[in-house]
Amino acid sequence: MNRKLRMGMIGGGKDAFIGAIHRIAANMDGLIELKAGALSINPEVAEDSGRSLFLDSDRIYTDFKTMLEKEAAMPAEKRLDFITIVTPNFAHFEPAMMALDKGFHVVIEKPITFTLDEAKQLKAKVEQTGLSLLLTHTYTGYPMVKQARQMVANGTLGKIRKVWVEYPQGWLSKLSEREGNAQAAWRTDPKRSGKAGAMGDIGTHAFNLAEYITGDTVEKLCADNHIMVPGRLLDDDGAVLMRFTNGAAGVLMASQVAAGEENALKIRVYGEKGGMEWAQHEPNTLIVRWLDKPAEILRAGAGNPHLSSFATHNCRTPGGHPEGYLEAFGNLYRNFALSLQARIDGTEASKEALDFPSVNEGVRGMAFIDNVVKSSASTEKWTTFEI
Amino acid sequence: MNRKLRMGMIGGGKDAFIGAIHRIAANMDGLIELKAGALSINPEVAEDSGRSLFLDSDRIYTDFKTMLEKEAAMPAEKRLDFITIVTPNFAHFEPAMMALDKGFHVVIEKPITFTLDEAKQLKAKVEQTGLSLLLTHTYTGYPMVKQARQMVANGTLGKIRKVWVEYPQGWLSKLSEREGNAQAAWRTDPKRSGKAGAMGDIGTHAFNLAEYITGDTVEKLCADNHIMVPGRLLDDDGAVLMRFTNGAAGVLMASQVAAGEENALKIRVYGEKGGMEWAQHEPNTLIVRWLDKPAEILRAGAGNPHLSSFATHNCRTPGGHPEGYLEAFGNLYRNFALSLQARIDGTEASKEALDFPSVNEGVRGMAFIDNVVKSSASTEKWTTFEI
Amino acid sequence: MNRKLRMGMIGGGKDAFIGAIHRIAANMDGLIELKAGALSINPEVAEDSGRSLFLDSDRIYTDFKTMLEKEAAMPAEKRLDFITIVTPNFAHFEPAMMALDKGFHVVIEKPITFTLDEAKQLKAKVEQTGLSLLLTHTYTGYPMVKQARQMVANGTLGKIRKVWVEYPQGWLSKLSEREGNAQAAWRTDPKRSGKAGAMGDIGTHAFNLAEYITGDTVEKLCADNHIMVPGRLLDDDGAVLMRFTNGAAGVLMASQVAAGEENALKIRVYGEKGGMEWAQHEPNTLIVRWLDKPAEILRAGAGNPHLSSFATHNCRTPGGHPEGYLEAFGNLYRNFALSLQARIDGTEASKEALDFPSVNEGVRGMAFIDNVVKSSASTEKWTTFEI
Amino acid sequence: MNRKLRMGMIGGGKDAFIGAIHRIAANMDGLIELKAGALSINPEVAEDSGRSLFLDSDRIYTDFKTMLEKEAAMPAEKRLDFITIVTPNFAHFEPAMMALDKGFHVVIEKPITFTLDEAKQLKAKVEQTGLSLLLTHTYTGYPMVKQARQMVANGTLGKIRKVWVEYPQGWLSKLSEREGNAQAAWRTDPKRSGKAGAMGDIGTHAFNLAEYITGDTVEKLCADNHIMVPGRLLDDDGAVLMRFTNGAAGVLMASQVAAGEENALKIRVYGEKGGMEWAQHEPNTLIVRWLDKPAEILRAGAGNPHLSSFATHNCRTPGGHPEGYLEAFGNLYRNFALSLQARIDGTEASKEALDFPSVNEGVRGMAFIDNVVKSSASTEKWTTFEI
Repeated sequence: MNRKLRMGMIGGGKDAFIGAIHRIAANMDGLIELKAGALSINPEVAEDSGRSLFLDSDRIYTDFKTMLEKEAAMPAEKRLDFITIVTPNFAHFEPAMMALDKGFHVVIEKPITFTLDEAKQLKAKVEQTGLSLLLTHTYTGYPMVKQARQMVANGTLGKIRKVWVEYPQGWLSKLSEREGNAQAAWRTDPKRSGKAGAMGDIGTHAFNLAEYITGDTVEKLCADNHIMVPGRLLDDDGAVLMRFTNGAAGVLMASQVAAGEENALKIRVYGEKGGMEWAQHEPNTLIVRWLDKPAEILRAGAGNPHLSSFATHNCRTPGGHPEGYLEAFGNLYRNFALSLQARIDGTEASKEALDFPSVNEGVRGMAFIDNVVKSSASTEKWTTFEI
Repeated sequence: MNRKLRMGMIGGGKDAFIGAIHRIAANMDGLIELKAGALSINPEVAEDSGRSLFLDSDRIYTDFKTMLEKEAAMPAEKRLDFITIVTPNFAHFEPAMMALDKGFHVVIEKPITFTLDEAKQLKAKVEQTGLSLLLTHTYTGYPMVKQARQMVANGTLGKIRKVWVEYPQGWLSKLSEREGNAQAAWRTDPKRSGKAGAMGDIGTHAFNLAEYITGDTVEKLCADNHIMVPGRLLDDDGAVLMRFTNGAAGVLMASQVAAGEENALKIRVYGEKGGMEWAQHEPNTLIVRWLDKPAEILRAGAGNPHLSSFATHNCRTPGGHPEGYLEAFGNLYRNFALSLQARIDGTEASKEALDFPSVNEGVRGMAFIDNVVKSSASTEKWTTFEI
Repeated sequence: MNRKLRMGMIGGGKDAFIGAIHRIAANMDGLIELKAGALSINPEVAEDSGRSLFLDSDRIYTDFKTMLEKEAAMPAEKRLDFITIVTPNFAHFEPAMMALDKGFHVVIEKPITFTLDEAKQLKAKVEQTGLSLLLTHTYTGYPMVKQARQMVANGTLGKIRKVWVEYPQGWLSKLSEREGNAQAAWRTDPKRSGKAGAMGDIGTHAFNLAEYITGDTVEKLCADNHIMVPGRLLDDDGAVLMRFTNGAAGVLMASQVAAGEENALKIRVYGEKGGMEWAQHEPNTLIVRWLDKPAEILRAGAGNPHLSSFATHNCRTPGGHPEGYLEAFGNLYRNFALSLQARIDGTEASKEALDFPSVNEGVRGMAFIDNVVKSSASTEKWTTFEI
Repeated sequence: MNRKLRMGMIGGGKDAFIGAIHRIAANMDGLIELKAGALSINPEVAEDSGRSLFLDSDRIYTDFKTMLEKEAAMPAEKRLDFITIVTPNFAHFEPAMMALDKGFHVVIEKPITFTLDEAKQLKAKVEQTGLSLLLTHTYTGYPMVKQARQMVANGTLGKIRKVWVEYPQGWLSKLSEREGNAQAAWRTDPKRSGKAGAMGDIGTHAFNLAEYITGDTVEKLCADNHIMVPGRLLDDDGAVLMRFTNGAAGVLMASQVAAGEENALKIRVYGEKGGMEWAQHEPNTLIVRWLDKPAEILRAGAGNPHLSSFATHNCRTPGGHPEGYLEAFGNLYRNFALSLQARIDGTEASKEALDFPSVNEGVRGMAFIDNVVKSSASTEKWTTFEI
């Protein structure tokens, strides 16, 4: 391929946290360039944001429909390859469907849609159009998460028995949504965020991580969600007992009122022969404990001969040069880009490049929200995981 | 007081793990001397063990009844002050009751008895005799656990919202009870261990730690116990959702099949203003995270002006000279001994010395086992914590 | 500014480690675009590399002189803004001088030149031309390093007494330069690397970090360098006692034969009131210990109110989303770019943007190499730090 | 042996830090009983201290000479086996010589004597009398330190190249000796402490640890000591470059003005094949890094099959039940006691029991002080390590 992929962005104007992250992730490896944007519904913000990102003025839009219409009509040598959607949850579905209809590949910030039903429709649309969709479950972009998955897949730990995944944050310990915190406002608002609060925002990440590493699926669950801060409208805390299809038992904990915690996603997986521990705050380390030998510290790093190809493919630096959240995010974009390049070039993408979250993960994430909300309200212990 | 307290021991012969630990804990501070023992029902082991501990030959016994009879008849200047019982769980109750009846104070390894009913009888006996009983829930002997409790009690964290307590071990990852491991054999045997396996052995420690630090009680719970190793007779793994009386929500995880883990008890407690984290494998550190200022690392140490008197009272060394499990155990014995000294001297023991686990903790621990086993078998989500 | 800055690159063809790092760092924030390159003296590699980076074919060069000539002649709307030089050490000086002469700003990988004398000439040239030069001492791009510097500058720790800086790597534990390792080959070759091996490659980073954080300068030193692997031509290990101008005493340790270590740069600085510890392998944390209160854990994060503006300016994500080596590198480029933008726009760059390493650091680094080599060969204890 | 060993103590009255530590260490394993003491030269303190330790009133002395005279005249069944000397440094030699002359084995707190010359005389006396002497270099009592030593001895790391040992404390960051801190007062007083301050108090521990683990000896050194706190009379900080007999290079750092540090002794040793890291604040872990495989975490624990017999012999608990400083101290006493038991019983002590520091370590420690003080004052780079 002799050019960068062309990206358009919906949402992500100035001061929107996640839009900036997507742009860094897309920029990082020099495979993608931002060429157009409907960055805000506020015309002034859209214009300012577009200019500060050096967009051509005729490719700065104020509504996504116009953008998709006009960009679809561009000649091939200018036309966007894909659209990144970083609007609040309630505004994912419509632009995603339209983008696919117009022939663009799509990147969506998670959760994929506002409702499970939308997620299923979107999945059907992707399958029908044959286009590619990346759902940015960032944490599965970390090399040591991929290493963990491969070790389970290879049977290195034996049959998996236990999964403990936890995601404590503390930033919603106060009623910040009433104190001018815009992030807090939309994330705790059922009309913009969806059925669940913490469980949707971070519980889904923890759930995705657990299914990704184990290569297994949750079969039934028992949830206990809470609104810990009086006056809040959605859960800000919860815990879920889980049973996996292949027999493992799990616990998922997610909280946004774990006062003082930043973003301390962590997972432990135990099998017959050993266990693994990975924590996002020190993401380049995977501790592996064994029944019959001393624990080992596996470390991320390009060229590390002790790691699987899925891990090293997602490293840019040798061991000891820490890569972080933005690189994990960048790995999603890079793999998505490599797979699009292969499509465009008519070659076959590597299995490592094809390993990124998409509509299946999106549907399961939305189903997780539904099932957890249902279970939490139920007096029955177990709720079957339904899609 | 002008002499050491005199201890007799039931159980704890050669090669018994916990008996040796009790002796180290009792020896450490020079307040107690072992003077008699029915260390084994095997006469040869009893004799060998007693001699290696330098007991007078006439105070080496082979059954506890004889010991209690004869020792009770000794003159005051020789008579034992208290009896330590370190037999397997099923053999706690009878000697404990008899010791109390004979006028001896009692130390019992946890769980206090084989059944909840026995625990209640023992509690009644203690109350009736007015004697003192120490239940060795070791982990509450750590200075930083006491610090955590005081910080909650003082309201430093505000109202408590979340409690996460976990206790992973890996030593039962195989069916070791069939491979000649004596510890595994009795602990997984319902006839010697009781109704529960992991939940009784280590779940009760986690439960006790959670109630001790929060100063709160579990009101209802939802348990999911497992036998992960085929052929095993008691649970080797489980998780429990908990609701506390004052409104906090909790999760308790205990596993003896967390392959590769040693003894990784850890607790996190979050309130409105901050959260705390304590882990037994690095017990001299208490990390306190705050909503409004940087996290702090509190460190155990005699004379540390940033700690409560309950913490410093239980330190023997200045900061940076790590104290461990044996010192925590020693703290239980030391506080028990100080409180007995005060009784004997007719003085008042300090509140710090009186802070050791006793019959109430024993009854609640046995009730925890009953309620967890009941809940795990139930299709109802919530089981009210009944005693 | 209404466009990205235009970068040309000298060196950094396919498989060159550091060239790829520079490109990621330059790409990351969307402020810079690579427009031309003399990426290799091997025409085929140059061509291949240029194409894979999507350069226009007429801006792919095989020698830097041609590139600088031709690019200098380009019209303003196409002309490069700056040149990045990522050739081996011996090939920094000539292209840097020529680039400055042609009116380009310059980025150079450290060490700045092959000899101290060249460094001084380059410094004179920069001063004479008034152009800007960035020397990529990556580690001073980390937000928590900047935080540490500000805390010293603000007197938060009181007068500084001690500096311990260490940089263990293990990758040269074998005679890899004879086993086909190209990185090892040039870095251990006096003709390409310079007078010093480990002390030049990583000792200079440690030295720069110590002077940057303390805001002080080394006044005299006592070095003990070693060649630990028989057959090697340059030092692979060493230690240096240091005295700082303001009275602090320091120790610097650098080794490339610390078998098993990755890239474990770490610094500790102690003053009258407290001490700080920062380690590159967990770069988002700065531990601050105090004489009179509990130790604190400062954490990187955009918007963290407990950090100085120099730290937060260099964060892209909120706390708990780890940023790493590439972001630190990206901070150097970002600040360099922001300062160039200000120049071009005729505005004033912020003090935070102007805080990047340049020719002074380059000259001091080369002087460090000279002084350390001289001291190590001397029987005198102290060698005055001369430039 | 059918009785506990009988200990007498010189020094260590109420409020003396180290005396209490020695008693806990001696008590812990039930092999030793304190029977007599000249605990203070202040009669009231001596009496009070003795009574609170339950000594018979006729074995509470106020001067050590009387004690040694009277106790030497006791009948065999009452006579002390050994004397523990825990007076300040200047008062070690005289009682130690006299105790040996009277036929008692001896335990001395380090440093062994006030001067090197005394140390040599004491060594000669021990050799002449054939009695046993324990010098309490506590840190070599830790199981993972013994593990480290065995791994070096077994060649597991290959030839040793690097030794980095550091001992930061912060408690002398102020001029506490003038503010009523008795510990600070004698330790910074040349008349009571000796030629060196920090280098004598903690530098000797670091030095001993380095020589113990490597099994090697320092051949020459280059020291840079400092008095950082104005008004102090002895060094409170220093660093030493070292060359070992077998070719390794080392750095030793010791400071008592590393503000905020507790007692952070740490050592790293690197050989051709790998490196090890041990830190006293988390003493049950030994991290071993390898050139050719992932790093391993070795953990202390009775029965751990991955450890040498020297390590497991010095563990009392299974892995995950942290043992600390007091147990390390207790290991010195336990091994000393086991070796005395063997002597008394006419059997042979195990090689593990015989592994405790004695007069050779004492002489080398005193020589370290002399050589470091000499080197620090010298303008020559290297000072040959002379005894």
